[in-house]
Amino acid sequence: MSMATSPQTRLLHNHSTNNFFNNNNNSFIRITAPSFKPISVKCSATAQTRTPSPPLTTAQDRVFNFAAGPATLPENVLLRAQSELYNWRGSGMSVMEMSHRGKEFLSIIQKAESDLRTLLDIPSEYSVLFLQGGATTQFAAIPLNLCTAEDTVDFVVTGSWSDKAFKEAQKYCKPKMIWSGKSEKYTKIPSFHELEQNPDAKFLHICANETIHGVEFKDYPTPKNRTGILVADMSSNFCSKPVDVSRFGIIYAGAQKNVGPSGVTIVIIRKDLIGNAQGLTPVMLDYKIHDENNSLYNTPPCYGIYTCGLVFEDLLEQGGLKEVEKKNKKKGEILYNAIDESNGFYRCPVEKSVRSLMNVPFTLEKSELEAEFIKEAAKEKMVQLKGHRSVGGMRASIYNAMPLAGVENLVAFMKKFQARHA
Amino acid sequence: MSMATSPQTRLLHNHSTNNFFNNNNNSFIRITAPSFKPISVKCSATAQTRTPSPPLTTAQDRVFNFAAGPATLPENVLLRAQSELYNWRGSGMSVMEMSHRGKEFLSIIQKAESDLRTLLDIPSEYSVLFLQGGATTQFAAIPLNLCTAEDTVDFVVTGSWSDKAFKEAQKYCKPKMIWSGKSEKYTKIPSFHELEQNPDAKFLHICANETIHGVEFKDYPTPKNRTGILVADMSSNFCSKPVDVSRFGIIYAGAQKNVGPSGVTIVIIRKDLIGNAQGLTPVMLDYKIHDENNSLYNTPPCYGIYTCGLVFEDLLEQGGLKEVEKKNKKKGEILYNAIDESNGFYRCPVEKSVRSLMNVPFTLEKSELEAEFIKEAAKEKMVQLKGHRSVGGMRASIYNAMPLAGVENLVAFMKKFQARHA
Repeated sequence: MSMATSPQTRLLHNHSTNNFFNNNNNSFIRITAPSFKPISVKCSATAQTRTPSPPLTTAQDRVFNFAAGPATLPENVLLRAQSELYNWRGSGMSVMEMSHRGKEFLSIIQKAESDLRTLLDIPSEYSVLFLQGGATTQFAAIPLNLCTAEDTVDFVVTGSWSDKAFKEAQKYCKPKMIWSGKSEKYTKIPSFHELEQNPDAKFLHICANETIHGVEFKDYPTPKNRTGILVADMSSNFCSKPVDVSRFGIIYAGAQKNVGPSGVTIVIIRKDLIGNAQGLTPVMLDYKIHDENNSLYNTPPCYGIYTCGLVFEDLLEQGGLKEVEKKNKKKGEILYNAIDESNGFYRCPVEKSVRSLMNVPFTLEKSELEAEFIKEAAKEKMVQLKGHRSVGGMRASIYNAMPLAGVENLVAFMKKFQARHA
Repeated sequence: MSMATSPQTRLLHNHSTNNFFNNNNNSFIRITAPSFKPISVKCSATAQTRTPSPPLTTAQDRVFNFAAGPATLPENVLLRAQSELYNWRGSGMSVMEMSHRGKEFLSIIQKAESDLRTLLDIPSEYSVLFLQGGATTQFAAIPLNLCTAEDTVDFVVTGSWSDKAFKEAQKYCKPKMIWSGKSEKYTKIPSFHELEQNPDAKFLHICANETIHGVEFKDYPTPKNRTGILVADMSSNFCSKPVDVSRFGIIYAGAQKNVGPSGVTIVIIRKDLIGNAQGLTPVMLDYKIHDENNSLYNTPPCYGIYTCGLVFEDLLEQGGLKEVEKKNKKKGEILYNAIDESNGFYRCPVEKSVRSLMNVPFTLEKSELEAEFIKEAAKEKMVQLKGHRSVGGMRASIYNAMPLAGVENLVAFMKKFQARHA
């Protein structure tokens, strides 16, 4: 077999599209290659290692994965990660093996930050931190860094996640729940003029998109407190649309919805808010430590940061977040329309104006059919449609990386299912 | 091109060894395949996704990577991770995309735990937790979970890492430094009978292997305190040899030395020590939360845990930690002998009886040659040999995954270099 004529050799040219026969089933398969840089294959006579990565394939059908996070990733990001896993761009090692202080990884984390700054147009007076521990760790870190134990903080509680943030803050400051959607089963976002903010609050906290309940802020309240600081958990709609970062003191997000694998948490923080952590703050929760060390105080989650970087590149190649938002709006429109036009067979409990473009919860009028719906959808390769255990029903998470075809497939299935059971 | 005759098709049979010509340079390359399960390639007529992972190769020379962590990983683990990255065992998704509550990922984390329990023969009264944030996060979590603010704790400080643990503990309890190797530049481990332990200490803390200074406990002190609890940071020698877990209250380790990529921290804790965290403990630092939720309270670092699982499988296939220890002893012997037999051209400052089998620091008598040594070694594909910025000189980290050939190469280079400069 000649390597020169193998598919992977052809794949190594930018944006090539190749067709070849898969001999195992004689079906015609189209491969669209992502934008790989050509890789030159060397084999030096003096080198001691002689075991290159063999060509590999796992050619099998890909499912449409509607999981709420970890969630589907862009296919070309996965293919690129796969192509580079064994040997990153001729470095002779995997990204997983790189010293976090070596020049190779420094180039990776710096490009990831730079691309994220471009995507979100992050002003220079903000730091970008790549941390660990999920948004849940930030629920403690934020009051620990911004408050004294006596400070008041305003929380708008629109679902499970903002409620968790509120509860964790009780350990470190005096949070006030100034609005709660609980009595209406977290199906609403308050109108901003009805929010009774405390003028002495240290900051106002919101969850920009509630992953479980599917409610999303379409605009943001203006903090009417002494500092003017708005803090937002954007875990589940981070980088799904443009955001005016300058309106926030802190934006934080777990990566595992829209921008990467789990294990990376991104914090975008206005620099003047750094440096006042309470004395009992664990060193790993102190923003000053991470900021001074460019997220390299201790070993960061290197491979996760690398993968986020590949996603940022992909989002830029798509044309940036305005283009991404257009696609997300289109997907959301198709799915919500299918629900609303089902004559009540499917129902979405969320108020129309604040329905999430990322997480779409819905129920069946005949709730006894829900298990069958989920099972049959899985047979048609649409998986993870079960609603969160705390709310039941179904939930389709349609993050950036869910292709339009996935939503179209789901809608077609919903119509078929309805016709069969109407 | 026929898939049936491609290298990857042949690779998909267990333990096959294949030789083929690399057409790019006409050199003969031997590929030894790790133990892959055969993968059947399907292409269902009803499926919507038509883009399988194309065969990929990154056939290039692999370097010998002596980094202190993240560090070299077993080559067959990397190849297996690469083969499964795009589509994990026919699931239609990457491990990076899997819901942490789905059956696929549950099978992964459960097998990882089970294999680790087998490797270290972990008694059933111990919990195994897969966490985030590195050992540095545990420096806070351990006193927060085990102590009141008034409790005394004994620290043996044998290097930078135990010193950091001691300093962080000052926020949460009253730690006493009962021994320090600082005045002797951290080149020793104390004899245990000279340790003046506080009878009222809540636990005795050691760092089993100091990554920067290269000193390693060859046995462990018996705690002479009221609880009899010994706590050990084993980040840099975890799973490098058998350990009697029952002698410890807590063993903790960042994964990125011997067992996986960065971003995973493993805590092995005796169950009766769980459940008494201080009121101000962040929820993510509370062992009870993680124990009750089997490390799935929030989204864990799934892909890192998966990779650790592949390493655990590999260590078991090697015959377990007794066999691994034999290999590590052999590697250490070769390298330390080369240093000791150089007539002072190379020097290792560490007392012979406690030299680390993982991290080998050494200097050149002619220190002005060190930069040249590092540069020339890199030319011969031996990288990351520079000592930690705090101690200078050189450091060769030779963790489990560093092959014997890597150490032999280094020693051959050292002899050549000496001959040239003697």
